[in-house]
Amino acid sequence: MQTNDTLKTIAERFSCRGYNASPVEREKLDAIARAAMSSPSAINLQPWRLVVITDAELIAQMDEAGMQLLRDTGEDEMYKRFMERGGKLFYNAPVMFLILKQHIASAELDCGIVSENIALAASSLGLGNVICGMARLPFECPKGEYFKEKVGFGNDGWEFGMGVLVGYGLVSKEPHAPDMSKVSYV
Amino acid sequence: MQTNDTLKTIAERFSCRGYNASPVEREKLDAIARAAMSSPSAINLQPWRLVVITDAELIAQMDEAGMQLLRDTGEDEMYKRFMERGGKLFYNAPVMFLILKQHIASAELDCGIVSENIALAASSLGLGNVICGMARLPFECPKGEYFKEKVGFGNDGWEFGMGVLVGYGLVSKEPHAPDMSKVSYV
Repeated sequence: MQTNDTLKTIAERFSCRGYNASPVEREKLDAIARAAMSSPSAINLQPWRLVVITDAELIAQMDEAGMQLLRDTGEDEMYKRFMERGGKLFYNAPVMFLILKQHIASAELDCGIVSENIALAASSLGLGNVICGMARLPFECPKGEYFKEKVGFGNDGWEFGMGVLVGYGLVSKEPHAPDMSKVSYV
Repeated sequence: MQTNDTLKTIAERFSCRGYNASPVEREKLDAIARAAMSSPSAINLQPWRLVVITDAELIAQMDEAGMQLLRDTGEDEMYKRFMERGGKLFYNAPVMFLILKQHIASAELDCGIVSENIALAASSLGLGNVICGMARLPFECPKGEYFKEKVGFGNDGWEFGMGVLVGYGLVSKEPHAPDMSKVSYV
């Protein structure tokens, strides 16, 4: 089997759901942001912005508001799942890479590309990471406008794209085994 | 600036729009397929399948049908753009990685993740690649059902997700410079 460092980064990456309190070095954040901004996009529209959130108090507020929304909207199964994992929607991650997107059809898939570049860049730098759809919850809760202002959604129609949590992992995990039964050759 | 092989692969990758006729080694195709199947997905649903198309005659038919659709539907600007680039929708690429997806909301972003893993895996192996939304056209043209049967969409509601063209590049290109003005820190 062919291999190299990039293929190893892809194969060994796992979704990290526990972080220690160490901050992430600014030069690593910059390298990850650069990888994100190197993403290809449909006809190179780059329909995104990236907000790197390292404000621990803000992340804690967003976490609490998101958990409360899960509880209040009767998402019992999901709420229980996070309570069992320690009660934190964002696993105490010190950094959230928040991707904002424009309201165009191609932006959703493009956000997936950006998310994976962030995840792989973080992994390659020895950082745990997880692509986190739950990061949308704070912006949909009653305090949503407050959070949108805090992170700078602005007034130009930017929407939540995806969040990627990053930090030094407390836990390590085997990656999912790739399911090669989903591949066919024609 | 921090760097490593994975970050270099991400930074140096470009969208390749010209291929030579050399086939791609099967072990490279397998390594790329494995990288694709290592993609994370929302709550690990893996709402995808991957079809690796290396049948040159089939790709040529799909190319022709797609170009005809562009012409017939009055997509003049797009049609002219491809005619200027050599008249080939798929740039004579010897391989198409066709991602099929399930009809669920999260699958679109997940397909972006898979697309980027394919692109980066290919780049890391010295192969040109381009994520190709135009790959949907053959399945939307009058011969669409024929092509769906040829590549094995089946009867379980699988939909076009994305195509990624791969092969040995005829051309090399500077990657887009990352636009760091799109990044803010909070």
